[in-house]
Amino acid sequence: MNDSLLYTWPHRRFNPLNGEWLLVSPQRATRPWQGQVEPVSSADIPAYDPHCYLCPGNQRANGITNPAYRSTFVFENDFRALVPEPPPSPFPCTHPLLCAEEERGICRVVCYSPRHDLTLAGMSSAEICEVVDVWGEQYEELGGLEWVRHVQIFENRGAQMGASNPHPHGQIWAQASLPNEPAKELAQQRSYLTQHDRCLLCDYAALEIERGERLVYMNATFVVVVPFWAVWPFETLILPRRHHGAISDLDATERMGLAEVLHQLTRRYDALFGVPFPYSMGFHQRPTDGADYPEWHLHAHVYPPLLRSASIRKFMVGYEMLAQAQRDMTAEEAAWRLRG
Amino acid sequence: MNDSLLYTWPHRRFNPLNGEWLLVSPQRATRPWQGQVEPVSSADIPAYDPHCYLCPGNQRANGITNPAYRSTFVFENDFRALVPEPPPSPFPCTHPLLCAEEERGICRVVCYSPRHDLTLAGMSSAEICEVVDVWGEQYEELGGLEWVRHVQIFENRGAQMGASNPHPHGQIWAQASLPNEPAKELAQQRSYLTQHDRCLLCDYAALEIERGERLVYMNATFVVVVPFWAVWPFETLILPRRHHGAISDLDATERMGLAEVLHQLTRRYDALFGVPFPYSMGFHQRPTDGADYPEWHLHAHVYPPLLRSASIRKFMVGYEMLAQAQRDMTAEEAAWRLRG
Ligand SMILES: O=P(O)(O)O[C@H]1O[C@H](CO)[C@@H](O)[C@H](O)[C@H]1O
Ligand SMILES: O=P(O)(O)O[C@H]1O[C@H](CO)[C@@H](O)[C@H](O)[C@H]1O
Repeated sequence: MNDSLLYTWPHRRFNPLNGEWLLVSPQRATRPWQGQVEPVSSADIPAYDPHCYLCPGNQRANGITNPAYRSTFVFENDFRALVPEPPPSPFPCTHPLLCAEEERGICRVVCYSPRHDLTLAGMSSAEICEVVDVWGEQYEELGGLEWVRHVQIFENRGAQMGASNPHPHGQIWAQASLPNEPAKELAQQRSYLTQHDRCLLCDYAALEIERGERLVYMNATFVVVVPFWAVWPFETLILPRRHHGAISDLDATERMGLAEVLHQLTRRYDALFGVPFPYSMGFHQRPTDGADYPEWHLHAHVYPPLLRSASIRKFMVGYEMLAQAQRDMTAEEAAWRLRG
Repeated sequence: MNDSLLYTWPHRRFNPLNGEWLLVSPQRATRPWQGQVEPVSSADIPAYDPHCYLCPGNQRANGITNPAYRSTFVFENDFRALVPEPPPSPFPCTHPLLCAEEERGICRVVCYSPRHDLTLAGMSSAEICEVVDVWGEQYEELGGLEWVRHVQIFENRGAQMGASNPHPHGQIWAQASLPNEPAKELAQQRSYLTQHDRCLLCDYAALEIERGERLVYMNATFVVVVPFWAVWPFETLILPRRHHGAISDLDATERMGLAEVLHQLTRRYDALFGVPFPYSMGFHQRPTDGADYPEWHLHAHVYPPLLRSASIRKFMVGYEMLAQAQRDMTAEEAAWRLRG
């Protein structure tokens, strides 16, 4: 334990990746809790569920039958949030206060495995590496479409994070415009490169490896930290140690390195409170409009909601929605617990 | 029903108040839901609970006994996120990537009524007006401290929104710096005033009154709309019709007008799905550093999580956390349902 672990006073921290501040109130972790207690998800999930619309050989809502797939399986989302050819917006942006635009997009589902009960934490690194390869291929294929500017690969895991089906799967939403979060990160990474002539996340990865106090796990090619500016209690940031802008740029060793850190991290999460740890996670890769993005450093954000136990989560509500993000534990303490 | 109610294609809308876009996917509202179902809160709450640390005459966690209060009651939060005199930051901002600052602040709790079971929806407009007066006084008192720059008044209502106690109460967090959300709104309101020589929210209130399609309720002094750029399914925005920057600037008629719209709105929410409607809400008032803020227009945001029924909520997860806000119903449809 070092000094920063002993600092338990409120302070605010700056997130250089999105340019926003957050409030840290470590002393709050001890307050009494009479609020909502989450149902703890039972581990009794069958390997095959005849009613699951993601299991091999089953029929989906739209009548299509899934193939008897043996590793990963990708298909167009039957209830997609985006469509490739929407009609014109009903509120064209001629008015500054009522402005809407068409948004073209493609939504896909990626099943990680035919097994209904096999999460990333239960898969071997080699099996996860097949998922990494699919992510790389999908980014290339969707990002390669002339009109696609951003490809968002993500996973909502667990009912607490809005997953509508427990079969392990992720999603990909590709779209014509650059959404807010990557747009903020682009601006921050660009201005850091201009000012320092180095990549922001290259510098940050090196700094965290040197200091160690927020390190969770690393191998030869990837590093996992609780970022200094983490918002969620056990939030982590996954970074390649070499400068790459997208999964498709990783060589075979690096893909295996990414698979291995995902394996290690998801197992540590599940071990923390002895339950399948809910989270939302996803990759931020360089925009796909064909321009050069030397400032962009590939990374994944992992946002798990649990705070004190399997049944007490952090709520991002009143103050957080209206003012700014707030957390009840330091990043250093969270990293120390995930390391141990 | 007018044309915009019939438009069910994905599009993105611009929020001129914070400068961000959101994705609207009205066609998604019909997708099957096999995900988390919320417990429906029972209405069996006693008028007095001997174990509640907010009820009159009861003892709080720190041993202090609450007075036998008869209308509102304000006290310092026993588990405050901010303190007035924190020690220096352990990570002074000399490093661009590891920057933390001390943050001074004061956290208070505002009980709305001695009755453990009386929510805003159950209070008369005259009773709510006493709460409005307290909010005005607190904003003046805390904002009047030389070092306080922002006063955040808010309420988390319902276990689903992280309320740690069902006794109707709100909170006030006053602090030395301007948090992200009001900082974004300040920049947007300022640039609108510069460009158009008029106040953004004055123009917006007039526009919504004229168009009517997103109007929920109005009286002589206040108006409630589902804003064009609403993120949460039944999100609303409460605006004074005259230009004011803070609750303390409202005259007696306007305070009563605000109380009446809160009464009307909370009753409509509870009627929508026949349950006490959970929400987080709060006021954005002009910064309190003593400078002039002619661009700032007082407003309240109300963010309720329910989507389809008392037990199916909207989850802001993977895509929303990593890319941008997304909703499954148009603002026009939500307003139409809240009006009817
Ligand atoms: O202060 P309370 O009611 O204990 O806590 C609640 O409101 C706070 C401010 O929005 C949040 O940080 C907490 O997560 C929430 O549970
Ligand atoms: O697409 P799904 O799994 O039906 O839905 C889930 O993920 C989406 C993308 O983050 C969210 O918009 C939904 O609220 C959530 O329930």
